[in-house]
Amino acid sequence: MTPLTHFWAVIPAGGAGTRLWPLSRAGEPKFLHDLTGSGRSLLQTTRDRLAPLVDDRVLVVTGVAHRPAVVEQLSELDPARIIAEPAPRDSMAAIGLAAALLELEDPDAVMGSFAADHVVTDPDAFLDCVRLAEAVARDGWLVTIGIEPSYPATGFGYIHTGAEMAEHPGAFVATQFVEKPVAEVAARYCAAGDYRWNAGIFVVRPGVLLDLLALTDPDFAAALRAIAAAPETLDAVWSTLPKIALDHAVAEPAADAGRVAVVPGSFGWDDIGDFASLHTLLRDETEGMTVLGDPRMVRSIDASGLVVAGTHRMVAIVGLDDVVVVDTGDAILVTTTDRAQDVKAIVEELKAGGHPHLT
Amino acid sequence: MTPLTHFWAVIPAGGAGTRLWPLSRAGEPKFLHDLTGSGRSLLQTTRDRLAPLVDDRVLVVTGVAHRPAVVEQLSELDPARIIAEPAPRDSMAAIGLAAALLELEDPDAVMGSFAADHVVTDPDAFLDCVRLAEAVARDGWLVTIGIEPSYPATGFGYIHTGAEMAEHPGAFVATQFVEKPVAEVAARYCAAGDYRWNAGIFVVRPGVLLDLLALTDPDFAAALRAIAAAPETLDAVWSTLPKIALDHAVAEPAADAGRVAVVPGSFGWDDIGDFASLHTLLRDETEGMTVLGDPRMVRSIDASGLVVAGTHRMVAIVGLDDVVVVDTGDAILVTTTDRAQDVKAIVEELKAGGHPHLT
Repeated sequence: MTPLTHFWAVIPAGGAGTRLWPLSRAGEPKFLHDLTGSGRSLLQTTRDRLAPLVDDRVLVVTGVAHRPAVVEQLSELDPARIIAEPAPRDSMAAIGLAAALLELEDPDAVMGSFAADHVVTDPDAFLDCVRLAEAVARDGWLVTIGIEPSYPATGFGYIHTGAEMAEHPGAFVATQFVEKPVAEVAARYCAAGDYRWNAGIFVVRPGVLLDLLALTDPDFAAALRAIAAAPETLDAVWSTLPKIALDHAVAEPAADAGRVAVVPGSFGWDDIGDFASLHTLLRDETEGMTVLGDPRMVRSIDASGLVVAGTHRMVAIVGLDDVVVVDTGDAILVTTTDRAQDVKAIVEELKAGGHPHLT
Repeated sequence: MTPLTHFWAVIPAGGAGTRLWPLSRAGEPKFLHDLTGSGRSLLQTTRDRLAPLVDDRVLVVTGVAHRPAVVEQLSELDPARIIAEPAPRDSMAAIGLAAALLELEDPDAVMGSFAADHVVTDPDAFLDCVRLAEAVARDGWLVTIGIEPSYPATGFGYIHTGAEMAEHPGAFVATQFVEKPVAEVAARYCAAGDYRWNAGIFVVRPGVLLDLLALTDPDFAAALRAIAAAPETLDAVWSTLPKIALDHAVAEPAADAGRVAVVPGSFGWDDIGDFASLHTLLRDETEGMTVLGDPRMVRSIDASGLVVAGTHRMVAIVGLDDVVVVDTGDAILVTTTDRAQDVKAIVEELKAGGHPHLT
């Protein structure tokens, strides 16, 4: 596959992954972990997946605390390409900063933003979608890749697609972004066939993104461009920027204005939001117990679910279905796939209850 | 309480407690552990419980591998009172050897044998029973303490009691020992009211025990007496002794011959056979999760059961009822109270599957 000239991957590497505690921690979040047993972290896999299209045209935006680990994991990249946010300020600031930097560096750039903690099981299909999205974005559209729903998820927002674009077969005009729906609404969306999951993947010319932002918040767009022109002002200006998601700041109003396109994709996407989705991703239908780690260190009888064998201890499970057991050096989680969402309550309790070092 | 002159406690300290894996190991069996959170091991508690009646008239019979730990835990005892079996040969050999030694040392002795890994929640009631049993045994009876059944257990044998003894009110003639019953039979025994659990507690004059053994196996009784007379022959003779439980070798035939008495007792006895019975023993009805160890290192949401917090790791449990989680330095068990019996299958699998060091 030939790389796309002037196409850049922007990788926002943030988010603690609280619902993946105790594997994911504030100090060592989800994207730094190998959650698929591939030997590469989610961050590394994200970069590997995009390499055929971008070579080394990669910008990572991450928290200042995590920058050293990111530099180490992506040692083949120029460390100057790994931007440290002084503090988390949501996705518009992070991706907008990358856009402002790229607008200066490469006036012909198209950028795609790809979260560092997603998985894709069919990378070729993924790249086909990105390639099409790049072509549409080059024409001035804000392009999102809309994931074909595989079930009526209530954990994602949806994008409603309109007419197919004559000049870009396979791409569609987006008519609306909708928030995470309740179950009945999600079921209706899936049945309708013209709704896609919003995976937060946006492909766009940097200047187009910032100009769209300027339509709703001209000061914000100007501030981002000012930081790019004088990077030494980053620390001083950053904390004054609005804390808002790119979806709300740009994508939703732009869709209302008919300026968003959707490339529907079906490439085994998952954001591994919790241990239930990790289990779904890793499970082998022939086995009762799915193991992330060394399967020789797990013994089970009449049991199914997920074991994350994160230490050299033996983990033995008897008579529990859909159980989740996560063993780490200083904490153990035992729950079920049904209750995987509630792990964050444990993390909140530990933070409040004198054990913030475990979170 | 005045000690009983010439009354001796024999404490057989054996048995791996496989169903309490990974807490109990072949190398560090159940009796060496504090399973009640009292700060004392089951062995130490057994000795403490008997101290008011026997002072330091205690003989422990244990495996050669465990003798150093037993000597350390019972440091107040003369180490010569802690006898090492060269290899496990079941209860008749172990208790018979103690009887033979005591027959020589104290011709007026009455001995009681009390397993090192049982718990008693009402020690005063227990001592009252032992005191009565000692009086009956002094008259030449083989006396067993029959536990009032608290539920129709299928995991214990039962003793059928006959007429009350005129000369020892509160003691009864035993008519029969019966094997572990199936559920319906156990229910019938409990309803009948004249069956007691056989807890393997025997009180008897050493010579009476050996003479009863001689009735069924004169060579065995003679061999035990020969070892006692020449302790240096122990290693050579031990492996030639029959491997048989005292119940089969002596108690059952003696009951048939009308020579066994029963003192019924109700003192919160338990043999902590598995984590389900440990949970029953430790549980506090007001709490969802019972913790053996430091409760500050356990967090739970919508969960009940037992956590054995054997390390300094945090154990977090979400959405599981009647769960059992046992955390040790090199192994973790996750099961339910219902399946607690099946833990031994894991131990067998580990033994066979290249991990005997974990068993």
